[in-house]
Amino acid sequence: MKITDIQSPKDIKTLNINELEVIAEDIRTFLIDSISKTGGHLSSNLGIVELTLAMHYVYNSSNDKFIYDVGHQSYVHKILTGRAKDFPTLRQFDGLAGFQKRYESEHDPWEAGHSSTSLSAALGFAVARDLNHDDFQVLPVIGDGAMANGMSFEALNQIGSEKRKMVIVFNDNEMSISKNVGAMSHVFTRLRASKGYTGFKRDLSNYLSHNKVGNAVLDSMRNLKNNIKNTVVDSSFFDEFGLDYIGPVDGHDLKELIRVFDAVKNHDGPIVVHVITTKGKGYEYAENDDSGKWHGVGKFNIKTGQSLSSVPFNHLDWSSILSEGLMELAKDDPSIVALTPAMCSGSKLLKFSETYPDRFFDCGIAEEHAMTFAAALAATEKKPFISIYSSFLQRAYDQVNHDVARMDLPVVIAVDRAGIVGEDGETHHGVFDISTFRSTPNLIITQPKDADEARNLLYSGFKQDHPWMIRIPRGTVEYKPKPFEEIALGSWTIWKFCDQVDATVIAYGDDVDKIIQKAKVNEINIAVVNARFLKPMDTEMLHTLFNDDNPLIVYETDMLAGGLSSGILEFKNDEGYAKQVKRIGIGDHYVTHGSIPQLRKHEHIDINSLFDLIVREIS
Amino acid sequence: MKITDIQSPKDIKTLNINELEVIAEDIRTFLIDSISKTGGHLSSNLGIVELTLAMHYVYNSSNDKFIYDVGHQSYVHKILTGRAKDFPTLRQFDGLAGFQKRYESEHDPWEAGHSSTSLSAALGFAVARDLNHDDFQVLPVIGDGAMANGMSFEALNQIGSEKRKMVIVFNDNEMSISKNVGAMSHVFTRLRASKGYTGFKRDLSNYLSHNKVGNAVLDSMRNLKNNIKNTVVDSSFFDEFGLDYIGPVDGHDLKELIRVFDAVKNHDGPIVVHVITTKGKGYEYAENDDSGKWHGVGKFNIKTGQSLSSVPFNHLDWSSILSEGLMELAKDDPSIVALTPAMCSGSKLLKFSETYPDRFFDCGIAEEHAMTFAAALAATEKKPFISIYSSFLQRAYDQVNHDVARMDLPVVIAVDRAGIVGEDGETHHGVFDISTFRSTPNLIITQPKDADEARNLLYSGFKQDHPWMIRIPRGTVEYKPKPFEEIALGSWTIWKFCDQVDATVIAYGDDVDKIIQKAKVNEINIAVVNARFLKPMDTEMLHTLFNDDNPLIVYETDMLAGGLSSGILEFKNDEGYAKQVKRIGIGDHYVTHGSIPQLRKHEHIDINSLFDLIVREIS
Repeated sequence: MKITDIQSPKDIKTLNINELEVIAEDIRTFLIDSISKTGGHLSSNLGIVELTLAMHYVYNSSNDKFIYDVGHQSYVHKILTGRAKDFPTLRQFDGLAGFQKRYESEHDPWEAGHSSTSLSAALGFAVARDLNHDDFQVLPVIGDGAMANGMSFEALNQIGSEKRKMVIVFNDNEMSISKNVGAMSHVFTRLRASKGYTGFKRDLSNYLSHNKVGNAVLDSMRNLKNNIKNTVVDSSFFDEFGLDYIGPVDGHDLKELIRVFDAVKNHDGPIVVHVITTKGKGYEYAENDDSGKWHGVGKFNIKTGQSLSSVPFNHLDWSSILSEGLMELAKDDPSIVALTPAMCSGSKLLKFSETYPDRFFDCGIAEEHAMTFAAALAATEKKPFISIYSSFLQRAYDQVNHDVARMDLPVVIAVDRAGIVGEDGETHHGVFDISTFRSTPNLIITQPKDADEARNLLYSGFKQDHPWMIRIPRGTVEYKPKPFEEIALGSWTIWKFCDQVDATVIAYGDDVDKIIQKAKVNEINIAVVNARFLKPMDTEMLHTLFNDDNPLIVYETDMLAGGLSSGILEFKNDEGYAKQVKRIGIGDHYVTHGSIPQLRKHEHIDINSLFDLIVREIS
Repeated sequence: MKITDIQSPKDIKTLNINELEVIAEDIRTFLIDSISKTGGHLSSNLGIVELTLAMHYVYNSSNDKFIYDVGHQSYVHKILTGRAKDFPTLRQFDGLAGFQKRYESEHDPWEAGHSSTSLSAALGFAVARDLNHDDFQVLPVIGDGAMANGMSFEALNQIGSEKRKMVIVFNDNEMSISKNVGAMSHVFTRLRASKGYTGFKRDLSNYLSHNKVGNAVLDSMRNLKNNIKNTVVDSSFFDEFGLDYIGPVDGHDLKELIRVFDAVKNHDGPIVVHVITTKGKGYEYAENDDSGKWHGVGKFNIKTGQSLSSVPFNHLDWSSILSEGLMELAKDDPSIVALTPAMCSGSKLLKFSETYPDRFFDCGIAEEHAMTFAAALAATEKKPFISIYSSFLQRAYDQVNHDVARMDLPVVIAVDRAGIVGEDGETHHGVFDISTFRSTPNLIITQPKDADEARNLLYSGFKQDHPWMIRIPRGTVEYKPKPFEEIALGSWTIWKFCDQVDATVIAYGDDVDKIIQKAKVNEINIAVVNARFLKPMDTEMLHTLFNDDNPLIVYETDMLAGGLSSGILEFKNDEGYAKQVKRIGIGDHYVTHGSIPQLRKHEHIDINSLFDLIVREIS
């Protein structure tokens, strides 16, 4: 069967094990081939080919609810639910999403993008089912990294007391995005090593001896619950929550997976099926990846494993610019410490972690704890630097407000992947943080226009006594480091085409220089303000800008509501200025997936849209 | 010794057990007497009198760090650190805070107000200590409700792997604010019943046989670590995290508490001391309280236990108005379900939980999970109502954005205790939610001006298909329920003193009628707009208001930055209106504690300040 011919899970239900194994290999080849051309989440999907096949073989999606935690490992599920043909458009504008999407298929009952929502969601589906006297199975698929997040714990706590029927598929690959950390990783290691399943397997084989795989579950299965309980040992972690447990199961042994899923099919109450998988399975480079660089990839050469995207000469990614600067500062200042919630690789803190192992803390997927931990370090005269992606920082809103800002503690927070991030789509765009944090007292919010300013804002952040955010976008920028210079709090800079300009644009981030460049090239007579402090603003400069008659344009690449321009309008009104401000920014809706340039164009927040507006205003 | 004479913990260190027991009784009497006059957190403080005494007896605050989770149970700590004399001002404006405050005392190294930050904080203090080669003990004191929150889990996960020296004082009173829920409560029950401590006690008594309580810890204590490990059984929950554990200890047996704290004083690495306490201990009414009504109290009559505050005739608190309305709607609509994160009593959902036990879910102190659980229920055609205090909703920012609003799921969210809440102070004021959530697409934010509108907004929320917030303040309002009526989305109403007014005030919530009343009484010729939808706004009415020449005042009682007036300024600017808007609201700072009227006056957001402004504008 051609992978792209699969219309629905029904197509694989009549196959035997050998045929399924062939399909598994074909899916792997398809995934590697397809993702090498589009980019996407490779390792996690290669890891759960057999697992997903077995689930679809035994259970009946869409009646049974498949809920993939985070959702980036749902590619095989997408293939088996008739979406293989759309893979050439994966993660592209108007194309197949990289995550489960309810609008895409009835087989996607839930959506995510952030970690550890699947167990709470599963409980919702299970409760609704029981209230409606419905009959279906709920199958959250959750990794070991996500399992150790606080939300999962909160959900397990209630799942254990509600005792609703569900099969929690615990996809344990001994890492989340990069190497797993924390005490839970030892718990899972102990579970992995446990002998309990051996006993179960033996007993189960008796039950199943006359049961062809794929046949209806035997009546005797009804007795399995007690059997499972009796034969499983060493499962104390899930036991603590009152959850039944079975495992560990070899996640690449299709026959075994199908046996186990069959066995628990009518299990009464919640049961954890512990499946051991290998991330990147079947593709050497991904399989041997320790750092997580094969977690999400761009286009690559299948043979060599080399990335096909290249960083321009003299350029460096923004995360590295901050972490390189941090290394320099940390050398002379032993009070500097660095924290990440499981994003050591993405936030480019690997070198710091190796150079200063005592001063580096990977907190796991635990943004809440990480932020409060950072606050306490600041309360004890340490100088914490914590790097979090903007969209994941949403998880730590309260900790920034209640702990860091309320106590006015000098934590330097790198808000990475700020702005539109592209292919990961609506769950990952870092476009809300300015609007949500602008009302937080004591907090300073900055965004550098270039690498030097990034370094200097980092340097300045450590020289003062308040919480200090540095927003940096995805991508790279020219990098020729100069000595650090302190930047005055709340100071903006202005560039002018000539003394008398026709309009002024207020912008922030790496758009500033692009706007200047375009104005120069096209001889457009404007001034460009670099609003490198989103909060506090440069009120002196604002007075000057409102006191002339030139059109004033605020160019934002984040949410309009409550953002920088909103702050400027507050200033304008409260100071009694009348000049109308033209605003560009993201309207009141979520932004879909696609390349950054495409999405910017789609949202009318690209530089061409800005210049169209400038030309209209000055003509 | 007079309680008010205690200057520092040193004053109790020379006492013997009998003298300490007298002090314990005196502190209890002092607490009951004092809180009966000021109001405050009674039960939790009565519960840890001996525990706090023992901690201060054995450890040396402020060198050793006492970190009270949430912090409302720090009264005894305040008394022992020289603050008893300030109790007549407890929770009052300019008076003693109801929580730990760093500005109040060197004995308060940390501050909280929200649950479950103490373990993350403790790790920060411990890490900083070790990096500085310092030597002190860190003592987070955390209840069983807070222990079951996701943040605690995230912190335990890292504490268990970092293995830093700390004594986690697990204050187990079998309830958080009200009865505890979830699988963890069973875990703790099993721990409570464990026999492990008996063995330890016996062994310990040998160690301590020649050791007068309060003397320096014996050298032999160095061996205690292994001893503790060997004698403790059944501690699997904390074991899972790699934490040592000792307990359960009778939290009202001073001698035993001191023994145990002495024994673990130099324990290497983190150890959990499990202390069983009785909430409300020593005051009959509080001790017998099942529902949590003695958790936080107003003034009361010590003898009768009767509250001295009374609800005005025909008035009802806002939470009850919503829950009564919910009961009526749920009667005819079986798809309505209700959720609370551990605030069944505060959110007045007790009656609902008794009438519809199958449709009621107390999720424990787990705002994140509760919100996503609600989202999933909405995704399955249930109609979830979830009630969360505004300041605790901050914990679920990402779940509202990423799960509820992004999938545009019709969850009705009651944002309780919105606005300034008074005596609980800066951690509890619900003043950020409008600013933070105004940029969230799909989300509707409302606030009723009176009980009828509250009911109708609830009714209307269930009649539509988007996430729908209803903000309600602390306190009561007149209540004479009428039949439900649907309210059109985004519609404001306007009251006018006469046809031709001199100024217009835009307000929301129960201030609207108060402003109208005052305008009537004082014959002030204004129009008052009830902006019952904070989002979306009534743009038709806004056009009308900007098209006349009258002064326009926006009266907010929440954060100014990014709030309603900010939205109105965006409208004004984008639609090309010039009229200046006068704005009242909370500036860029945190609001302290005190009575609501005092705080409103202090922040210049009281109605008198509004009318001062009106008079200035129209004269």
